Amino acid sequence: MAALVLCALAKTARTTTKRCLVSHLNGTVSTGGLSSALFPSHGPSLPLLPGIRWFSRGSGLRFMSHGTAGKSAGGRTRRAFALSGAALTAGAAVAGFLANANHFQRAEMATKIPQPALEKREDGDILERCRGFMCSPVTDARVLQENKGEMRTKMEMLIMETQAEFCKALEEVDGGTFQVDKWQRKEGGGGISCVMQDGKVFEKAGVNVSVVSGYLTEEAAKQMRSRGKALKGKDGKLPFCAMGVSSVIHPKNPHIPTVHFNYRYFEIEEEDGSRQWWFGGGTDLTPVYVNKDDAFLFHNTLKEACDQHHPQYYPDFKNWCDRYFYVRHRGETRGIGGIFFDDLDSPSQEEAFSFVKSCARTVVPCYLPIVYKHLNDPFTQEEKAWQQVRRGRYVEFNLVYDRGVKFGLATPGSRIESILMSLPLTARWEYMHEPAEGSREAEMLEVLRNPKEWV
Amino acid sequence: MAALVLCALAKTARTTTKRCLVSHLNGTVSTGGLSSALFPSHGPSLPLLPGIRWFSRGSGLRFMSHGTAGKSAGGRTRRAFALSGAALTAGAAVAGFLANANHFQRAEMATKIPQPALEKREDGDILERCRGFMCSPVTDARVLQENKGEMRTKMEMLIMETQAEFCKALEEVDGGTFQVDKWQRKEGGGGISCVMQDGKVFEKAGVNVSVVSGYLTEEAAKQMRSRGKALKGKDGKLPFCAMGVSSVIHPKNPHIPTVHFNYRYFEIEEEDGSRQWWFGGGTDLTPVYVNKDDAFLFHNTLKEACDQHHPQYYPDFKNWCDRYFYVRHRGETRGIGGIFFDDLDSPSQEEAFSFVKSCARTVVPCYLPIVYKHLNDPFTQEEKAWQQVRRGRYVEFNLVYDRGVKFGLATPGSRIESILMSLPLTARWEYMHEPAEGSREAEMLEVLRNPKEWV
Repeated sequence: MAALVLCALAKTARTTTKRCLVSHLNGTVSTGGLSSALFPSHGPSLPLLPGIRWFSRGSGLRFMSHGTAGKSAGGRTRRAFALSGAALTAGAAVAGFLANANHFQRAEMATKIPQPALEKREDGDILERCRGFMCSPVTDARVLQENKGEMRTKMEMLIMETQAEFCKALEEVDGGTFQVDKWQRKEGGGGISCVMQDGKVFEKAGVNVSVVSGYLTEEAAKQMRSRGKALKGKDGKLPFCAMGVSSVIHPKNPHIPTVHFNYRYFEIEEEDGSRQWWFGGGTDLTPVYVNKDDAFLFHNTLKEACDQHHPQYYPDFKNWCDRYFYVRHRGETRGIGGIFFDDLDSPSQEEAFSFVKSCARTVVPCYLPIVYKHLNDPFTQEEKAWQQVRRGRYVEFNLVYDRGVKFGLATPGSRIESILMSLPLTARWEYMHEPAEGSREAEMLEVLRNPKEWV
Repeated sequence: MAALVLCALAKTARTTTKRCLVSHLNGTVSTGGLSSALFPSHGPSLPLLPGIRWFSRGSGLRFMSHGTAGKSAGGRTRRAFALSGAALTAGAAVAGFLANANHFQRAEMATKIPQPALEKREDGDILERCRGFMCSPVTDARVLQENKGEMRTKMEMLIMETQAEFCKALEEVDGGTFQVDKWQRKEGGGGISCVMQDGKVFEKAGVNVSVVSGYLTEEAAKQMRSRGKALKGKDGKLPFCAMGVSSVIHPKNPHIPTVHFNYRYFEIEEEDGSRQWWFGGGTDLTPVYVNKDDAFLFHNTLKEACDQHHPQYYPDFKNWCDRYFYVRHRGETRGIGGIFFDDLDSPSQEEAFSFVKSCARTVVPCYLPIVYKHLNDPFTQEEKAWQQVRRGRYVEFNLVYDRGVKFGLATPGSRIESILMSLPLTARWEYMHEPAEGSREAEMLEVLRNPKEWV
């Protein structure tokens, strides 16, 4: 019922354009609104990715490794990053050392990202950097300052920065303002949901951050990990920490595509005190009509970010994305894809974080140029109706397949409004809808039924 | 992909207002479009119904029994049936003997339903009665004629008659015409989907019949039965036959409620040749605003039908309905309920069928008077918007919880269009929507959060 309390609060404060609400969520072993941000999955039968070697380490846990994560990719990285980084204004990077000795590896990032602006961002004072956020972070800024070397801190700073950067870019193009709701979880942590509804450009735009911790049952822990690894907890319970940023943007104009991204980090402590950690995430585009230039810009920006870290990342994660965002009962992908990955725990924690950071920083350069390009595109009622039908498919994917949504809805105490903010403001289901042969709608369907290479 | 073929056919024939299409669905162990009609469930933790005794018979199978299914209920029955039966014009009853000796019991119906009109309907020639259907039945009419004593035949006739009766009543009030699509399943059986979209009164109205047979895996068979009974098949495969009629009607005017009903029959043959059979079904109402008179009429019509058969049926199945149509993550029921039952295999096959028949015949008198009453009610944009938000919740229930939909979407070869015709034409998701205190919208929510007794 906590969400209802929050709703009531929000109602009274609706006239305020920007505000910070705090609600206390009840519920046990809850992941709160984080779930949609943090627990996506591939389909039940996702085969191993071609080109990626999976091998066992220890007790049956499989790790992903790229044999050639080396200098050649690094060389491409720098140029690509400079390119996409130039479009960023509000982002910030995170540096330091990891306190978690189990997974600590020396960060090599400093040698890879030489831009002075980025260096400065990463070295910046935590308290100072927090001022640029949509809201004070979930974890008290002083606690973050004290633990600035820990991965939890670095990731929380990254997701807060990503949220702020993306929200500000969207506010700039729309002219509207995000409603900011901060919520707390009784068991620890909470989240910040930023939603803009019925704006000038955006029908519904949601950017959500969650940072939660607590205890998971062994069964829940197994579900969290996409490859379903069994984890051993003390008396069946496993302390966990999970955080992420997730966003879905539904524009009004059918020529501006919907975008979704989601970057997340998990830590689970096993019975013997060892910590499992992994990253997951992705960014994908759902246009209403095919636009090859947009598709190229979107995918190429992602590819350049991936190529900084490994030449196999983009092809593998592009493939994974097409498989994950598949509306099986329709025989269609949700959109034209992008990248998607999960269970990333190699080659080192710093390297994996560095990759996630590169991805998070592509969010604005991936999408905003496309928004600006089509801002004033005229559209017909028929085009709007087709957009509504595609929105219906979006809802189908999110409610039927998205593991994060399913996990969140099944978890008592979840913040439902944050989980379901990904649903469009409006959607439509027409019986036996099939576009006319040769139409632009049919062209879109063809692409969704047979995913393409865009770069 | 078979659905796509059908879609393409439908497209070319869209100008025809009424037609009969036949497509051949591919897929193995498929239940086709029948699934949404035939496989609903209660929530995962539905407790046993109070007032109903459950007991084991043989190998752990639990049967439901009402100790006093006797004459006193029968006495009330006659009056109630005469009342609701009076509104029916197109229905027909089924009589005869069951060929299946395992479950055969002498029909006592003739002594319970003395109306001459009904007698005539039941005695009518099968071929003659088929002329009143929306389409020729799934099973060839001559086969039905040859096996007129079998429960499969009786039930197929009942669901075809219910479909025709309801569709004709809706066409009369709307002025529009149903699109009739007949589809076939490669493995046996098929269905008839009747859909009216964007009519004068109805935004989307779907009435679906499915009659399918084939083989189920033991796992699938277990899932089909709501109490999850393990069934033993020959080499793990169980021959089954399942049929049902299901309908969802979404009107345009927010003062006319959405209605849903679904009546179904199953047969599964076990390894030793014994046949399990059971009935399931229900009718429930989803208004946008509370109207106590409508709620009374709806529930009372159902109660009178139930009371013909057992005084405990209405209170138990009303309760089951409130539990089944519960949107857990919202803490709300989908609507104001009605009745819902599953696994009904007592006191005898004839008695159970007689009860299902009574229920199926309440569909028109339950709903049409409410439609006519509010046909010309004026409404505001705000009322329409609230309807759209409620439609969003309807979609949430259907895609997240409805076992039939889930089963159907997960089954290869299902006719997706028939499964998802239950979704409204339009829906809306507003972030943090909460009606103002004391508003009629808040009154509706209050009822959904705390189910009421209406009779």
